[in-house]
Order: sequence, then C-alpha cells, then structure tokens
Amino acid sequence: MYRTHTCGDLRLKDAGKEITLAGWVQTIRKFGAITFIDLRDRYGITQLLLGEDLHQQLGENPLGREWVLRVHGIVAERSNKNPNIPTGDIEVRIISFDVLNKSVTPPFTIQDDTDGGDDLRMKFRYLDLRRNEVKKNLELRYAVNRAARNYLHENNFMDIETPFLIKSTPEGARDFVVPSRMNPGQFYALPQSPQTFKQLLMVSGYDRYYQIVKCFRDEDLRADRQPEFTQIDCEMSFVEQEDILNMFEGMIKYIFKQVNGIDYREPVQRMSWEDAMWDYGNDKPDLRFGMKVANLKSAFKKSGKAIATGELIAGAGFGVFDNAETVVAIAVPGAAEYTRKQTDELTEWVKRPQIGMQGLVYIKCAADGSFKSSIDKFYDAARLRSIATATGASAGDLILILAGPEERTRKAISELRLELGQRMGLRKRNEFRLLWVLDFPLFEYSEEDNRWVARHHPFTAPKPDQIETMIGNSPVIEKASEYLQHPYAHIKANAYDMVLNGNEIGGGSIRIYQRELQEKMFSALGMSEEESLHKFGFLLGAFEYGAPPHGGIAFGFDRLCAILGGSESIRDFIAFPKNNSGRDMMLDAPATIDEKQLEELSIQLRIKK
Amino acid sequence: MYRTHTCGDLRLKDAGKEITLAGWVQTIRKFGAITFIDLRDRYGITQLLLGEDLHQQLGENPLGREWVLRVHGIVAERSNKNPNIPTGDIEVRIISFDVLNKSVTPPFTIQDDTDGGDDLRMKFRYLDLRRNEVKKNLELRYAVNRAARNYLHENNFMDIETPFLIKSTPEGARDFVVPSRMNPGQFYALPQSPQTFKQLLMVSGYDRYYQIVKCFRDEDLRADRQPEFTQIDCEMSFVEQEDILNMFEGMIKYIFKQVNGIDYREPVQRMSWEDAMWDYGNDKPDLRFGMKVANLKSAFKKSGKAIATGELIAGAGFGVFDNAETVVAIAVPGAAEYTRKQTDELTEWVKRPQIGMQGLVYIKCAADGSFKSSIDKFYDAARLRSIATATGASAGDLILILAGPEERTRKAISELRLELGQRMGLRKRNEFRLLWVLDFPLFEYSEEDNRWVARHHPFTAPKPDQIETMIGNSPVIEKASEYLQHPYAHIKANAYDMVLNGNEIGGGSIRIYQRELQEKMFSALGMSEEESLHKFGFLLGAFEYGAPPHGGIAFGFDRLCAILGGSESIRDFIAFPKNNSGRDMMLDAPATIDEKQLEELSIQLRIKK
Repeated sequence: MYRTHTCGDLRLKDAGKEITLAGWVQTIRKFGAITFIDLRDRYGITQLLLGEDLHQQLGENPLGREWVLRVHGIVAERSNKNPNIPTGDIEVRIISFDVLNKSVTPPFTIQDDTDGGDDLRMKFRYLDLRRNEVKKNLELRYAVNRAARNYLHENNFMDIETPFLIKSTPEGARDFVVPSRMNPGQFYALPQSPQTFKQLLMVSGYDRYYQIVKCFRDEDLRADRQPEFTQIDCEMSFVEQEDILNMFEGMIKYIFKQVNGIDYREPVQRMSWEDAMWDYGNDKPDLRFGMKVANLKSAFKKSGKAIATGELIAGAGFGVFDNAETVVAIAVPGAAEYTRKQTDELTEWVKRPQIGMQGLVYIKCAADGSFKSSIDKFYDAARLRSIATATGASAGDLILILAGPEERTRKAISELRLELGQRMGLRKRNEFRLLWVLDFPLFEYSEEDNRWVARHHPFTAPKPDQIETMIGNSPVIEKASEYLQHPYAHIKANAYDMVLNGNEIGGGSIRIYQRELQEKMFSALGMSEEESLHKFGFLLGAFEYGAPPHGGIAFGFDRLCAILGGSESIRDFIAFPKNNSGRDMMLDAPATIDEKQLEELSIQLRIKK
Repeated sequence: MYRTHTCGDLRLKDAGKEITLAGWVQTIRKFGAITFIDLRDRYGITQLLLGEDLHQQLGENPLGREWVLRVHGIVAERSNKNPNIPTGDIEVRIISFDVLNKSVTPPFTIQDDTDGGDDLRMKFRYLDLRRNEVKKNLELRYAVNRAARNYLHENNFMDIETPFLIKSTPEGARDFVVPSRMNPGQFYALPQSPQTFKQLLMVSGYDRYYQIVKCFRDEDLRADRQPEFTQIDCEMSFVEQEDILNMFEGMIKYIFKQVNGIDYREPVQRMSWEDAMWDYGNDKPDLRFGMKVANLKSAFKKSGKAIATGELIAGAGFGVFDNAETVVAIAVPGAAEYTRKQTDELTEWVKRPQIGMQGLVYIKCAADGSFKSSIDKFYDAARLRSIATATGASAGDLILILAGPEERTRKAISELRLELGQRMGLRKRNEFRLLWVLDFPLFEYSEEDNRWVARHHPFTAPKPDQIETMIGNSPVIEKASEYLQHPYAHIKANAYDMVLNGNEIGGGSIRIYQRELQEKMFSALGMSEEESLHKFGFLLGAFEYGAPPHGGIAFGFDRLCAILGGSESIRDFIAFPKNNSGRDMMLDAPATIDEKQLEELSIQLRIKK
C-alpha cells in the first residue's frame, strides 16, 4: 500500500494518527539536526519532519527536489502554523520512508512563476503540467466538461460518437487526410466537425445530440490556433432559433454557476450582426465597456437606421475626411488630458501595418466645455461640439477619429477601442459579458471567383421568409460591380454566435432540411450537381426520407475554458498542445516514417527543393 | 413552436389537453372515413386520429410512411386501449396538422425485424438508426458511458484529453498516418491508444486519469474489428495490482447496476493465466458453464501442479494418443445418448480447417455405469473408467477427447467446449460472469526473429520479485531450441485482463517506471538504443524526473456495450460503423482526393498494378 491519505487530506483532528503518504519533494529546509520537507501531490502539500535518527538512512544520498517518496509517520500539530494551506495546522513526523524514485534537477522550477521559457516548457511538458498554474487550468477544463455534460444530460441530450475516419470534402478549410492501406490510392479525412453526422442523427430521430469531440483543420497556424481542437457539439430537432438560444444560454449560465460560482441571472443580450458592425466595428463586440463607435460617414448602408451621410464633417475643406469612404469615432472617457506624447503614440499605434491607418484625428473635450483638436484649422468650436455630441462625448473625454476605406477603417476603430479598453483596465478578467449576435448575412461575396461563399457553412438555412428569394432567383452574378444589387446579397442567415468578452465562443444555425433548398445552396456556392452529389450525396439522399426541421451549435471548448479561466491563450488549457508550426515539441512530431510504411500505403514523397 | 410534448409523454391524465406533437408516420390505418396514424419520435409512439373533415386537406396527396408531421390536437381516452405501449390509453384527435417534410419509400422497413440486408442497412445507416433495435443499442451505449464517467468522477478520476496527431512508433499493430503539409515529408500518426500520454500524466502527478477515447489501428480487418474503436482508458499512481483490481471491479459492478439493473455482489473470480490455459484451453474462459478441460497428456508444463504425464492413456497401443504431444478431454453433461450421426457431425466439426483436428474420440458413460467408446478396441472398461474419473464425467455424460500438437489441440478443445456450451444453451445472454485473469507471461517467444516480444506491451512491469531476473540477465537467446530454459521465459507480468462471458473486455498492467528497467525492456524486444531513444526518448526522459509507481487499464468500450446488450457484434453498437474492408458504405469513404491536395502534402501515389 502506497498511501493511506493524500497530501491534501490531513487536518488537526488527525493529530496522533499513523499514516502513510506518497508524493514529490517540493522543498527541503534543514534546521540543524532536523529537516523539513514539503511533500506535494495532486491534492496539496503536507509538511514532513525528518528527525536526526533518520538522517543516517540518507547516507551520502541527500534527498532532492522532485524525488518521489513514501513516508510513514505520525500526524502532529505544528508549532508554526501556515494559514495559507489547508494542511497548515499539522506536520507528519516521519517514522520511516523510502525513495520510490529519484529525480535529476528539472530544467526549470516547478513553481507558479517558473523560470522556464515557452519552448523548454513545451519540450518538458510533463514537468510543466506539475505546476499548480497549469494543473488549475486542466482542473477547470474538466469542471467545464463535467458541467456541460450534466446540463445536456438533464436536458435529454445523448452523447453519440461520430466517426473520425471520414471522407474529404474540402470546403474552405483544408482537411487532414489519412491514406488507406487497404484501399490503395484512397484516403480518409479527419473531420473538421461532425456537422453532417449530427444532421444525419437528426434525420434518424435522435432529436438531441451532443458530443465533446476533437476536430481537425489543416490551416496555416496563427498564434493560438491548434490543428486539433475540441468542440462541444450539439444538435436539436423540431426547434426554431429561439429554442436553441434559450437552451444554450441555459448551458453557459449553468457552467458559470458550477465552474466559476457566478450567478448570471440577466438574460443574455442580443444584437444583430448589422448593429454589432455599426456600433462596434466588429461581429463579436466586447461589452464589458462602452466606447461605441460613432459613424460620421459610412459606405456600409445600414438597414432601418439613419445612414451616416457625412454632413457633420463635410464642407470644411479637410481632404482626409472628404476623400474617405468611412469616418468613424470613439469617445475615450476621461482621456482629455492625454499629452501630445500620448496622442502621438496612439497615432503610431494605428499606423502599424497590422492596423494600417494613415493617421489619427483627436478632439479633446476640456472640462470647461472648450475643444482642442488636431483639426482646429478646419473646424470651429461649434462644429467640433456637433461632432462631440454625435460621438456621445462628455466634458473630459478624448475623441479619436479614423478615416479611410470602409472595411479597414471599421476594423481599425474596433481594434483601437479594444486597445483603449485594455489600457484603461475596462476589460476585467473576472467580469463576464455574454452576447448573442444574430441575423448574419447568409452569403459573402467572393471577388476572386465572382460568386457567393457561405458565411457560416453550406448547411445554414436562410430566414424562413427569405427561402422564396433564394429558391426563386438565380445565384449567378451578372455584373460583378453590382453584386450588392443581387437579391442574394440581402438574404439573412438563421444563424447565431455566442460572444463572451469579445470572443466568439460558440456558433450555430438552423439547418436546411429540404433537398431542393440544399441543392440550391450548393449551386449558389458554385458546386456542380455532380460535385455536390459526390461530396454530399448521402446528405441529399437523407433529406428525401423525412428530415425534420433542426438546428444546432458548436462551442469552442478550448477557448471557452481559457476565457473562463481568465486567459486568452488556449494552449494553457490543453494538456499536450502543439506549437505555432503544428509541432509537438515533446514527442518531436510529426516525423519521418519508414519507407516500408510509405510503400504499404501506396504513396511516396515528392518534396520540392 | 414545433411541439408541446413528445410522442412518449401523454397519458390518460392528459385527456382534454390541447397539445402539439411532431414526429414520423410509423403506420397509417384507414377505417372508412377516419384514419389512425401512429406518430413516432425518439421517446415513443402516439396514436393520432384524423377525422373526415381533415381528409380534404390531404387532397390527392395521402400521407406516407416516414413523413414528418406536426399535429395540433386534443388528447382523448382511447376506446381500444393498447397495453403494450406507455401512451396506449390515449389518442390525439387532430385539429390541424402540417407536413413538415415528405419521404420517399424507404429501401427497407423501419421495424425491429427489418427486411433490409446488411449492405443496404449500412448504406442507409441514417434509416437503420431509426429502428428501435438500433436505438436501444445506442441508448445503452450512452448509459454505459454515463455510468463509467460518474463512477470515475466519484473516485477522483479526471478526464484529460490527449492528442490525436502524434508520432508513429509502430510496435506490433500498424499506425494510421497523416501527412503534415507544413512539415513536408513528415507524418503524424493517429494513436493506437493514449498509453504513453497517460503514463506521462502520472509523471506529471495527475494520479487518477480517465478518458473515453477513440483509438486507431490499421490492421487487416477480421469480422467485428473496426479500424477506429473506443476505449475507456484509465491510469492511477501509487497503486499496486490489488488497488486496480478493486477499483475497476467496482466500476464494472456499478455499470451492471446502473445499466442492466444487476446487483453483482460476489467478488470477481480470479484465475492465473496458467490455470485458465490448463483448465479451459483459453486465456479468457467463459465461466457461465463448466466442462473443464481434463489434461490427459500435455507438453505445457504447468508450474505448481501435477503434470499430465499421459499414464492414463499410455501403453494401449493406440497410436493417435501415443504419438500426440497433447491429449485433452471434456465431459459433456447428459450427452451420453448422442447418436452416431451426432458424434459424426462433431467429428466433422473439429476437422474443419478453422479447428484443424484429425479426429475426435468419444466415450459414452451410460446410465448403468457401462462405457461405449470409439476406442473400445484399445481400452477396456477399467481403463475407460479411469479416464472418465480423470475427466470428472458422471453417468450419462459424453466424454470428447482431442489429441494433437499442444497449441492447436488446446485451442481446439477450447472451441469445442464453447460450441457445446452454445448448443446446450449454457451461454445465456442475460447471465454475466466476470473473471480476472492474472499472472500472464511477460514475454512471448518469436520463432521468426529468435527474440522476445511483449505479450502485453513494452511498458508492462514484471512481477516485483522478478525485476532482478530481468535486469540481471541478458535477453539474448543463445540457442533457439532451448528458449524455454532462458530465465526470461518464466518472468510473469504484473498484468491483468478482465473477462466477461468469455470475452476480454479490459486489460492492463502495472507499468515500468524506472528508466533502467524500461531500457532493459526495449533492448529485450530487440530495439537498439538509438531506436528506443528516437521512438520513446520523451518517456525515458520523463522517468528521470521522479516518475511515480503507476498502472492502469483500458476497456474495449464497443465490445463492453455489445456484451451488456446481449450481442456479440460491436457494429450494432456503433452509430456509423465501417464494414469489414474498412469502408464507410454511407459516405463511400475512403475515396480519392484531388491532385492539388496530394501536391500540397508533398506526396504522390504509387499504386502497384
């Protein structure tokens, strides 16, 4: 028997008991003839006291950090209590011990503030995983997993496993493929998501499905993307959008409660995609703070709202505004006192290639009601006041204005808003703000191919009242420059994203379940009938045998965990992550394989020099 | 809103309520002006009554099987109750309805006894999944999943996800590999199991890990093998074999209770590998019935027990026995009255190539104490009685004797025993008999390579008292014919298999956790130092940083579910299985991929003609 208790178990009430512990040496402190050892396991740390008599046993082999010990001893009250740990009232006086395994000196310290760099910690991930910081993350991940499963189970969802060796249907992202030895020249693909399978399960009548499942995308990796990632994948039959929003709003709130102890009582805010783009320049706004975007001039024609015509800024002879497609502004609260150095630095910030603006205009709204701006030459106080009013600025605020091409400028103002929110401490780690973004466009226009591409995926249904528009019109775009006049440009998707603190944590849609509409969708995306049958014939076939109305959602499990853990890095929440080149540094994978393996798989290499 | 209730909800107490249901048309029965429709969903079947007034709405488009309907109506007591279904007391009188989707005629009937053949059902798996029989299997699977998770959670196990894109380390089974686009010429492998990762997690201190996880093996498929399969994968630190046996015996009993409602109270029987081979000719004996093997003569030297020297049968001039390496027998209870035709048929059965025996000897033990045998010419009644006593036969039993080479004969007697158990109805679907098989040999001898191979896998530890034997001796086999004299031939593994009704449902071992011993193991398996470092350097490295004693087990989840569901076929318990050629008939996968994809992956085909 290796232990009677764990290193997190013992309390003052256990004093006098003879116990056995096993764990790792965290620290060793010698005080004359006695030695204190902190013994660590998954559950905590217990102080051990090694008396003079036992030192002989050590001989010339003193204990070292990360050695694995089994100790037999008696629990005793400590004279010098440690209120910071649950076992801090006691220590274990060692009667006997054995060294279960030794350790060489670790390449970095196993502590919250380790001295190990990123690469070193990845190479020795099994040591990094010992650090309390990383352990807490994996524990949180398991708690989220458990909470999601319990909620879904209580709501009649069934975990049904879908296959990993499927068929390659490249759409957008690249598939990872797996050569089939038994079918020479043929390949399986690893699933980018179980999308078509969960839809088939709806056709099969399993009306509430879920899975916490690995998915694979062979993308050029950006920071914080992983070639394999985990989804909480869900689908329901006989539902409308509203049913799904309610069900999964409930799930996230349940997770908040179970994992973070947060009672998120208010209904999750909802916002149309248009409003999000208009007011925040972004389809996943961080609502932990304000600084809404003021649209002084815009090429983006927002439906059902006054259009930003540019009147407020026109006719002043300021070419930057006059020639710009879009002029947008935010009011930074209480920043009117920014120095020249500070506004210059912000100007440099927006001119970086990642943001790509030509410059930054500012208006300082002084406490006394006066204005000082970088455009005083062109605008008098009255006009500056009008702009300030439109921007919603108060006395003491700093207005920042960007001008340029529509898409880039809107993205830039969004980035600038987030940056200032960050700098001003308005994006608090432990504050959580949920948002549903709704009413996305169904299609995006691809200039390259002069055709439509699916904004979400090819299985997303249009709003019910726009099905006719889709069926009744040809998807062909006669004149590229007039694509915005095409009826397809205005079809909205029956889709929804869940946003948490400015991150998309989940997204889904009501699906197409009629063969005719699905065929129309494939053809709108430029797929020939032959191609759509080759790739998705099984799904089109299934729709002929009584497919029910259905819809679903998938949550990015890695990211959800990261945000709930107050981090932005998903790698910290994955036990064995890959680096930005898709490599596992610990395994040193991927790696070459034997010629014999290649031959059996009926493939050979062709490496470009 | 698509429904207020499901098709399994409504009872007599709901009579008078206005409700909405949605589901599939199971059957339609017309009685003059009214029509009865059975509407089906995941939860049950509800009878609908469509009155004369609504028939007009159908027009020329009568409803069909598998159409999807939404109906609004009033719950009413049935005049003609159906006691076989929970909703059998009521029917729903339709006020209005809409057809949500139509269905063409399915290629087979959606019923328990379908008329669909295997291939057809696999191609249209989404329809097959509608059948109650298949649905029950997937529900059972989910119940087992849920029970296992709950038990493991209660016992402090943590679900930790391990990666799917890892490194190829072919050992025995072939890996599926995945070409890396970003690392030309390099490949990931899909895991055959998370073995090394769970061991690393133990080194990291996560002392109780589990995962219900997909694993992959590119094997030549036999019936009822799948290239992707699911394991309940577990590992524990600071444990000895006894701790693991107790923990997982507990898990299986918990699953029995939760899923099958069975209170399996008795301790799980234990048997050494030697005893299993000796008494049943098999390392996974089905203990639902007796018919133990009597060893009349054996080349297999069983330790600690009288050896079958062959004295009972020697010296009678019966060459078949005299020249055989092994002579084994079973007594079939109450089968003394078998006719000549029946014994002839059994003789043919053992002569089939799958069994491969030359013939079958029988002794009928008549009720009056006399004997009649196929070897009367050689053995008198006294000798036959001695054989009968050794076989444990009673009056009325039929003794069946096989003779031949050790391995084949032992396998044959095991098969014969199972066949007779089956024929006599002794292998009951709803009876469950668990067994731990222990004390396996650590190594097997490979004649082909004249070296040792791991019986379990290279990470399994020898029994503690045999570590010295392993460390202290060279694994080299000087003389192939004397391999049995090599000390390694007698090292027992610290390994265990769990057997249920003659099927191995789980297996595991206490692991090696010392670098020196692990290196010795790799070298014993013929791996050079360079090779072992290339393949498992990360694990050998990890063992230097304080690896704790640990061990684990993995259960074959698909098979476990099949047996709990009273079936022998795992395919029936997998939502989307592959056929015996590893193909997904529904998707038609694997398939060819684009030349562009191949090029991006830096590979090309080389198909042998």
